[in-house]
Amino acid sequence: MNILPPALQEVIDAFGLLPGVGPRTAERYAYYLLRRDPNSIHKLVAALEELPGGIGYCQKTFALVPAGQELSDLYTDPRRDKTVIAVVAEPFDIVAIEKTGQFHGTYHVLGGLVSPIDGIGPEQLHIAELVKRIDEDKVVEVILATNASVEGESTALYIQQQIGDRKVIISRLAQGLAVGVDLEYADQISLGRAFDNRQTL
Amino acid sequence: MNILPPALQEVIDAFGLLPGVGPRTAERYAYYLLRRDPNSIHKLVAALEELPGGIGYCQKTFALVPAGQELSDLYTDPRRDKTVIAVVAEPFDIVAIEKTGQFHGTYHVLGGLVSPIDGIGPEQLHIAELVKRIDEDKVVEVILATNASVEGESTALYIQQQIGDRKVIISRLAQGLAVGVDLEYADQISLGRAFDNRQTL
Repeated sequence: MNILPPALQEVIDAFGLLPGVGPRTAERYAYYLLRRDPNSIHKLVAALEELPGGIGYCQKTFALVPAGQELSDLYTDPRRDKTVIAVVAEPFDIVAIEKTGQFHGTYHVLGGLVSPIDGIGPEQLHIAELVKRIDEDKVVEVILATNASVEGESTALYIQQQIGDRKVIISRLAQGLAVGVDLEYADQISLGRAFDNRQTL
Repeated sequence: MNILPPALQEVIDAFGLLPGVGPRTAERYAYYLLRRDPNSIHKLVAALEELPGGIGYCQKTFALVPAGQELSDLYTDPRRDKTVIAVVAEPFDIVAIEKTGQFHGTYHVLGGLVSPIDGIGPEQLHIAELVKRIDEDKVVEVILATNASVEGESTALYIQQQIGDRKVIISRLAQGLAVGVDLEYADQISLGRAFDNRQTL
């Protein structure tokens, strides 16, 4: 006997495929759409139907672009400095950096991080294309803006080796205390980095 | 300038309509569907398209049923005792109670709880239909299985008044310590109820 109608159970199961969504959360989403806001169903369906077909990748930076567009707006914009590249793991990292409003160079999306456990080797990432860009765009600085994780660090190290003795400044995002975090609640490693990278006043 | 392609931004916005989903979570869902599991998009679209049209309400219990079905399986099942009714606020409460495997009566879904703040008065709930069922099905016990919240309590009180002096046992789910919860972490009110409702051994 079905406690819930199959049409509802299938929506719950489909939501359950999303990352971090358990059965209870999936039930909440499904019930919300059913009872409180049936109009959202159409919005979600219409948006999802366009999803895979509407997206492409920038041929230079591998950022997400509307399908059919060859280069990212952030790359072609003449106000962006093509000689400075921020290297990020995933396209959404660009959104986070753009929100700071402090970076005026261009991006390069690796498409992941080196992670032997997940079977991702450096040859699956857009590292060769980065090195090519360094030569083509006369790049003066590469900012390795990967996560401060084991994968982020080892990917950064690998890229550094690939860049070799090209005359380019290679930098890494600063690590230390997060702004607004109490020292007593900071994790050991961040606190250690904050000591290592302390600034003379 | 769009940092993200419109096709992706629209999926993020649509997911953002779901309860408790902020922009970061919506981004995670959209990116997961795009990069890691494009097949899930079709599953989700297919399921959502069937959602509103595939669901109906039981004419007696107001539980969710497949469209076109008049009565809930849990109501028509001859093994279920129609003389005992568990009154719940929402259809998913039935799922939670069924999981205990301890209740063999039938259900009555109110469709919400009395909540003046949200503009929900008792006349919008299926209370008149409950009273009618009590008479028609010769009900001997009504278990008011609404939440132990202000709304749950006041709805239970209102129903009790509507049942009036009909010869029917009216009960309420026991309140006290949650099983497995340390006494020192229990909230004051639950601990207070646990004292009030203490059982003689």
